Order: sequence, then C-alpha cells, then structure tokens
Amino acid sequence: GPAPFFILGPCALESEAFAWEMAKSLKEIADKTGIHFIFKASYDKANRTSVKSFRGPGVEEGCRILAEIGKELGVPVTTDIHTAEDAEIAGAYIDLLQIPAFLCRQTDLLEAAAKTGRVVNVKKGQFLAPWDTINIADKLRSFGCERFLLTERGTTFGYNNLVTDMRSLYWMRKEGLPVIFDATHSVQRPGGLGGATGGDGELAPVLARAAIATGVDGVFMETHSDPANAMSDGPNQIPLEFMEDVLVKLIAIHHAAHG
Amino acid sequence: GPAPFFILGPCALESEAFAWEMAKSLKEIADKTGIHFIFKASYDKANRTSVKSFRGPGVEEGCRILAEIGKELGVPVTTDIHTAEDAEIAGAYIDLLQIPAFLCRQTDLLEAAAKTGRVVNVKKGQFLAPWDTINIADKLRSFGCERFLLTERGTTFGYNNLVTDMRSLYWMRKEGLPVIFDATHSVQRPGGLGGATGGDGELAPVLARAAIATGVDGVFMETHSDPANAMSDGPNQIPLEFMEDVLVKLIAIHHAAHG
Amino acid sequence: GPAPFFILGPCALESEAFAWEMAKSLKEIADKTGIHFIFKASYDKANRTSVKSFRGPGVEEGCRILAEIGKELGVPVTTDIHTAEDAEIAGAYIDLLQIPAFLCRQTDLLEAAAKTGRVVNVKKGQFLAPWDTINIADKLRSFGCERFLLTERGTTFGYNNLVTDMRSLYWMRKEGLPVIFDATHSVQRPGGLGGATGGDGELAPVLARAAIATGVDGVFMETHSDPANAMSDGPNQIPLEFMEDVLVKLIAIHHAAHG
Amino acid sequence: GPAPFFILGPCALESEAFAWEMAKSLKEIADKTGIHFIFKASYDKANRTSVKSFRGPGVEEGCRILAEIGKELGVPVTTDIHTAEDAEIAGAYIDLLQIPAFLCRQTDLLEAAAKTGRVVNVKKGQFLAPWDTINIADKLRSFGCERFLLTERGTTFGYNNLVTDMRSLYWMRKEGLPVIFDATHSVQRPGGLGGATGGDGELAPVLARAAIATGVDGVFMETHSDPANAMSDGPNQIPLEFMEDVLVKLIAIHHAAHG
Repeated sequence: GPAPFFILGPCALESEAFAWEMAKSLKEIADKTGIHFIFKASYDKANRTSVKSFRGPGVEEGCRILAEIGKELGVPVTTDIHTAEDAEIAGAYIDLLQIPAFLCRQTDLLEAAAKTGRVVNVKKGQFLAPWDTINIADKLRSFGCERFLLTERGTTFGYNNLVTDMRSLYWMRKEGLPVIFDATHSVQRPGGLGGATGGDGELAPVLARAAIATGVDGVFMETHSDPANAMSDGPNQIPLEFMEDVLVKLIAIHHAAHG
Repeated sequence: GPAPFFILGPCALESEAFAWEMAKSLKEIADKTGIHFIFKASYDKANRTSVKSFRGPGVEEGCRILAEIGKELGVPVTTDIHTAEDAEIAGAYIDLLQIPAFLCRQTDLLEAAAKTGRVVNVKKGQFLAPWDTINIADKLRSFGCERFLLTERGTTFGYNNLVTDMRSLYWMRKEGLPVIFDATHSVQRPGGLGGATGGDGELAPVLARAAIATGVDGVFMETHSDPANAMSDGPNQIPLEFMEDVLVKLIAIHHAAHG
Repeated sequence: GPAPFFILGPCALESEAFAWEMAKSLKEIADKTGIHFIFKASYDKANRTSVKSFRGPGVEEGCRILAEIGKELGVPVTTDIHTAEDAEIAGAYIDLLQIPAFLCRQTDLLEAAAKTGRVVNVKKGQFLAPWDTINIADKLRSFGCERFLLTERGTTFGYNNLVTDMRSLYWMRKEGLPVIFDATHSVQRPGGLGGATGGDGELAPVLARAAIATGVDGVFMETHSDPANAMSDGPNQIPLEFMEDVLVKLIAIHHAAHG
Repeated sequence: GPAPFFILGPCALESEAFAWEMAKSLKEIADKTGIHFIFKASYDKANRTSVKSFRGPGVEEGCRILAEIGKELGVPVTTDIHTAEDAEIAGAYIDLLQIPAFLCRQTDLLEAAAKTGRVVNVKKGQFLAPWDTINIADKLRSFGCERFLLTERGTTFGYNNLVTDMRSLYWMRKEGLPVIFDATHSVQRPGGLGGATGGDGELAPVLARAAIATGVDGVFMETHSDPANAMSDGPNQIPLEFMEDVLVKLIAIHHAAHG
C-alpha cells in the first residue's frame, strides 16, 4: 500500500515565532526522511480542565499564522475548530479542518465544516464504537463533503484512562473510510489526573508503531521542542529531537507490513 | 434528607400542542403525588445519529413555548443548549439551563450559561470520571455561577453500551455537589444500534429506584404519552401512564432509605 | 415480593473462637431484625495477591467448625470451594457451596458441587456478561442440580476497578435465575492496589441499598468485628457494629420498592 | 533485539493423528521460515460454555501424545493445565506448562506448576491490570520458579468483548517480565455469543502485527488445517495455509521495528 502521511506539530500555537520554528524543523525532517506531512497547531484549547489554563491566540490570528506558514513552506496546514463560526473563518485559510472528539456528533459543526469545501478530519469520540463512525461519514456526505478523514484517538476504558483498540483501525478501513491514528492523544490519561502520570510520552511512538503495523492511512503526532515547558499536553508530546528516528522506523514498519 | 425533586418531560418538543399536553398531565401527577418537578423538553436534537432525524422548533420558538407553559402552570422549565448564542437566548426564558454531556467540558458554553444568572445543570460526559466533575464545578464558580447541578447519565462501557456506576452518585455528593440521576439516558444503547434493542424503557424506573436508594438530589426522567411514536428516543422514554406509579415508589424508597 | 435473605459473615475463618463469636453476634442481630441469614466464612483464601498472606485452616477443619456453628445456632452455613476434592469434603458439612468468581466456568468444579446435592451459589465472573450466566445454570442443571444461586459481584471496568451494573440483577432475574448481590466484593479495587484505597467499606451498604431497590433475592455482605485488624479484605468488610442498622434499612427499602 | 519465538498449534488435541499432522506441517513451515516454535495443543477444554462441547483426550493421554511429537520432531511442546494434579502429570512430559487466564491467581496451581521445574507460562487474566502480573511473577519466584512467561490475551471491555491494550506489552516488558502475545484468544468474543460473530479469525494476524511492532518476546497463535470444522474455537484459529505468510510478515516487522 501507499506510504502513510503524517499530521505533525505542537499541541498549541504558543506564539507566532514558536509555530514558525516548529514548522521549519518539521519541514527539514520531512524532506530528509521523505515523508509527506500536514502541519498542525491549535489556536484555542477550548475544553481545558481548568479555566486558568492557556488557550491560544484565537481563530483569526491563529489561522492567519498557519496559512502563512503553509504558504511559505509549501506544506498543508490543519487546526481544530469548535463552532460553526470558527469553521467559516478557518475555511478561508486552512487545508484540513479538524473536528474535536467531543464534538464529533454535533451536526451543525459537521455541516459548517463540510460547507467550506475543505477536507474534514473528524476525531472519533472516546464514547463511540468504530462502526458508528459510518454515521459521521454519512452526515458529511449528505452535506456535500466527500473528502474526509476519521481519526482514532482511544476509547474510554474505566476512569481516567483510554485504550486504543487496534481492531478499530482495521474495521473502519474495511468500511472504506480513511483512517488516521492519533498517537499522542491515545496515550492521554484524561481528566484531573491528566499529566500527573509521567512517562506516557514514551508510549506515543510505541502505539504509533502498532498502528502502522495494523494498517492506517496516516499518523497524527504532537511534538514539541521542549515538552517539559509546553503550554498544554506536555507529557504526551513527542520531543522534536526524537521525531526523525520515530518517522524512519514507522516508514520501515509500513514497508515490512504492507510493502 | 429532603425529598428529591424531578425533571420530567418528553425528549423533544415535538409540537406546541404536544408540549402543553405533556406539561399539564405531569402537573396533575405532581399535584397528586406531592412532588416538585421541572418541566423539560428539547427544542433541538443537535447530535442525532442521522441528519434525516427530527431536530425540533429551534431555540427562539422552543424557549418561548416552554416559558409560556412554565408561567401558566407555575412550574420551572428546563431545556438543553448547544452554543453560547443559545445560552443567551434561552437565558431570557428558561429557569434551568442544561449543558449536554458531550459538551460538558466546553469552557465557552459553560461561561455563557453561567453569565445568564440561571441555574445550570451539567450532564456528566460519558467519558468523565466522577471526581473530575469538580473541575466543571470550579469552572462554573469561576464564572460567577454558584447554583448548578451535575447529572449522572452513565459511563462508556465497551461499545454501544453505558453503565451506571452508582458509586458515582455517592462520590459526587460527598464532594458537596448536588447530583441528579438521569434514568432514561443511562439506559440508552448509544450509537447506531440505539433503539434497536427493545426493552430498555422498562429499565429506566429500575435504575431510578437504585439511584434513589443510593441517594440523589433529583431524578431526571423522560416520558411520553406514546413512546412508540415518539420523534426521538422512543424506546427509552417512560410511558406517561406509568409515571404516577413510578414516582410514588421512588418517594417511598427515598423515605425508607433516607427518611 | 418475599423479603430477601442474607449471607453474612467474615471474609476469613480467622480462628474457631472468632467464627463462633461472629456467628453468635449475627444470630442475635438476625433474631432482633427478623431476617433470615446464612453464615459465611472462608477456610482458604486460595488466590491471594501475595503468597505471604494468611490463607485459613483448610477445608476439613474449616468445614467442621462451620457445621458445628450451624448446628448449634440453627443457621445454615456456606463457604467457598476451589477444587472437586474440596466439593466432596465440604458437601458432607455445608448447606450452601459457593463457587468463586474466577472459577465460575470450570466445568469439573461445577459438576463436583452439583453432585453433592447441596445448594450451589456461583459467583458471576468479573469477565462475564449477565446473560451468559444462563450457560452456568444450564451446566448445573445438566449435572442434576436444580437448586442454585447466582451472585453478582461486579464487572471489570478498566484497570484495578470494578463496576456494578444494576441492570445485571434485573436481567438475570428476568431469566428466572435467583440472584444474590455481593455488596462487599463489588466495591473491591482488585489487584495490587486492593486495600490501598481507603473508604470503600462505606460503599458496601450504599450499593446494597441500590441492589435491594433494584430487586434481588438476597444480599451477601462480609462483616467483621474489627475490620482494621482483619486478616484479609479488611477495607471492604462492614463493621459488625453497623450491621443491624444496615439490615433494618435494607428491609425497609425492600418493602418500599417491592412490598 | 532477538527475533521473537512462536507458540503454534491447534486449540484442541482433536485426535492423535490430527496432532501429528499439524505438528509436522508447522515444523516444515518453521524450517522454511527460520523461526523457533513450541508446539501447542490442549488435552482438555475445561471451561467450555456448554457441557455438551468436546473436551479432549485428558491429561495422561494428551501429554503422552505431545511428548512423542516433541521428541520425534525435535520441537518443545506446551499444553494448559487446570489442577495441581494435572501439573504433576504434565510436568513429566511437557516443556512449557501453561496456566489458563481464569486460573492465573490460583496459588496452589502456580505452586504445583513451579514445583515441576518446567518453564511456566501464565496467561494474564481478563480481569487483571498489566502491572499486577508482577504479583504472579513474585508468587512463581517464591516457589522456586525463575523461568516463566506472561501471556497477554486481552482485557474485559464491556460485555462479550475483549480489547488488547498494546501498552500492556510495553509495561510488562519494562518490568523485566518476558511477554507473549496470544493473538487468537485476544480476538475472541467471550461468552454465549462466542463464535457467532464471524470474521474475527482475520483479526488475529492483524493484532499479531501490532504486537510485534510494539515489542514482544513471543507470539501465540492457534492454527487449524480446517478451522470451519474445528472441534473448538474454530472462528478464531488462523487457517494453516496462511501461517507461512503470517510468520514471514511478522519477522519482517520485527526487524523493521527492533532490528
């Protein structure tokens, strides 16, 4: 099968300078390893556990920055949107619009994303069975969107834990749906304990390997040049310095498993 | 302890006439059984599985109808809101604003609801641990909302199933949080199979009994005069004709357990 | 419906004197509250987490003690058996033979228990769906056992946690199967962390109330005159001094819900 | 890292002739692909759903057959034991003694297996957290057994379903424990519905690929020359004709991921 592509970038658009730095570094790694990637950063962390947490520059500013980065580096860009209004604004700038997992069944948001004509990437809710993503695909198609992706990011497994069911990737693809595996959010410990349990960041590349061996169309990984000082989701992000090795191994596994 | 109150009404505001009829019937039952209740109906089913499904009259029309019913019958009313804009409109009419479970962590929606000055009822996400509702309470308080409720409506349990952890009611109340048990949504089989598994409607009163015996501040139950022909969630709604008996038994259990 | 009966006693048969003391105290409470109970104690804790843990007096000695207690006090007795050999020995002394949850599908053990002619109480495995207990009932019947009970004691819910699905009680009884709810094991945190999470002992009476309100044939509760110094399962056992109040409340709830 | 080894064979020892045929075929495939394997077959299916199901030739006869096959073909053999008596008999013949998942915490069975001096392979219970396997390892060591394996075979995930948490493989190996992944039982749908859901057999090689990419010491796969007519677990066994391709791919993935 064709080599998987990657969605890479930091969790949050911490600043314009930071976004440029991360994008340039990733572009270099992509050129060196021969992978295709979409640059990702969030302009608004809209469901943080605490109201005191950093949220981001907002939709207008965030999308402008991402679009400039994309144009300059010749790389498609993506970000997550949270309202129908966001969809309209982001649709003017952004190549791939991402629907957050908690919002994956909000009909109005899916419709607004679909109406932009952009590619839409819906994260599968932590509460959703793999086969029920077909309903999401049907909704998107009914709104005229034929180019979309579904992203697996783990399923609720007891309290404060997610599990990645690798069968989910297989089942969704068997339905003809294009599937991304989000390696960094799948290893999150959701809720108030999130981040308190160290060491999960080392798990993201492990699960990415498993997903590639299972078979996916793409892999989503958040990365940061300094995870310990990241403004959000620090413990889960893969250190930028490891990213080249991670990608080289993933490509090798893909060829071994599906070449 | 004080007797629990009830949130009762049909899933959807199917029509103005239907809403009046349901509210009047419930008011009679409440007067007869001596319970306090809040009348509930949804003006928009915003995350239906299929785009072809009935959604409702919309926020303006829906809230106007509910407010008229509430004023005429002397009963507080509630409905669920899905955006910050909805919150502002509904806040002018509605006594108790309900935040849907999938949206329970959307900071902007919580803020908009809090800013109305109305009581806010947040459904606990199917992906959330009981103790993480404290973060929701803290968010609401930080936006100036001191009067709020948390509603348990089941936790993701494998695929296409929810389980109600009765310990959740105990743990949340022990934190000083006022807790409602949503008996009808807790017995849902979420996803594409929803409604295909008959017989769940008979489970709602069973779980309501268990929740009352465990200890709750209130019970939420959807009811319909003709569940088989309901425009949404038919199989889970309790037939209106059974409601009086259900309530009488729940009150008796409350007195036996906590009187 | 008829009032539920109770299976009461300490987790482990710590000593002959302790067993007598506990049984006499429970007999007094039973006489005072008017309940029927079966006295329970384990002669061997066969699957402790650590090999260094206390196990008990063994099958011969344990069953002899229980039988003498039962005869003297006029109370039926029960204990859990772990092998076909145990079943044969215990069958000579014990009124109700209990099959542990992990062993609920071991055909030879079920057969040996059935062949004793005693009543058999099978704990539902933490890995078993409610409707699959029908297969256990069918196995017992095929071995000539028509008098048996099924005990709900929680289902695996993520790691190191169990959840009690109250629907399970309803579903099993609807199949015509007699159902016991084990309140003390249902609040266990299984595995290496077991017992480390204090405060679960207060949950056992809470879940017992919910189960009674749901509807059960009996309730199993472990109790100890000094839980803090119990030789096993200390944190889950209900202090003996609370048992009378717990029972009075459970009976009251039963009458309110099903009287 | 070193290449993983494999535990391969049919679910049940259906007949002496069948066992020989399967072992010879697997030996040929192993020689051709350069893998190391242990031949597996069960002499007794001790926890079948129904008492009418085929169980096998029993411990004496089964172990004799396996030992002869092992000696003749120069291949180590393994089988699962269910009682301390079984352990003693099997210990005289069998290289690797397997403890079934439901019995993984039965201290007496672990002790009896350890006392044989054979290598012991404990299947991780469907109810056990990965980190709690350390308690099993400690038990084995306290009985003098230093050579043992732990086998992941899925965790309870709602009703009638298992999920394989690939993180489990990583966590257990990080503790220094040698880990096998059981690909065929991990795709089982446990309980009365088992086997009714077709198509799971195709999932076993998919999950095996994911496990190899994650990192394991060995892979367990049941295989049958005619799964449709297998006397047990037909739908999960991998058709023998596919086994060579499956193994070649797994070895390639191992080298890509860990070479």
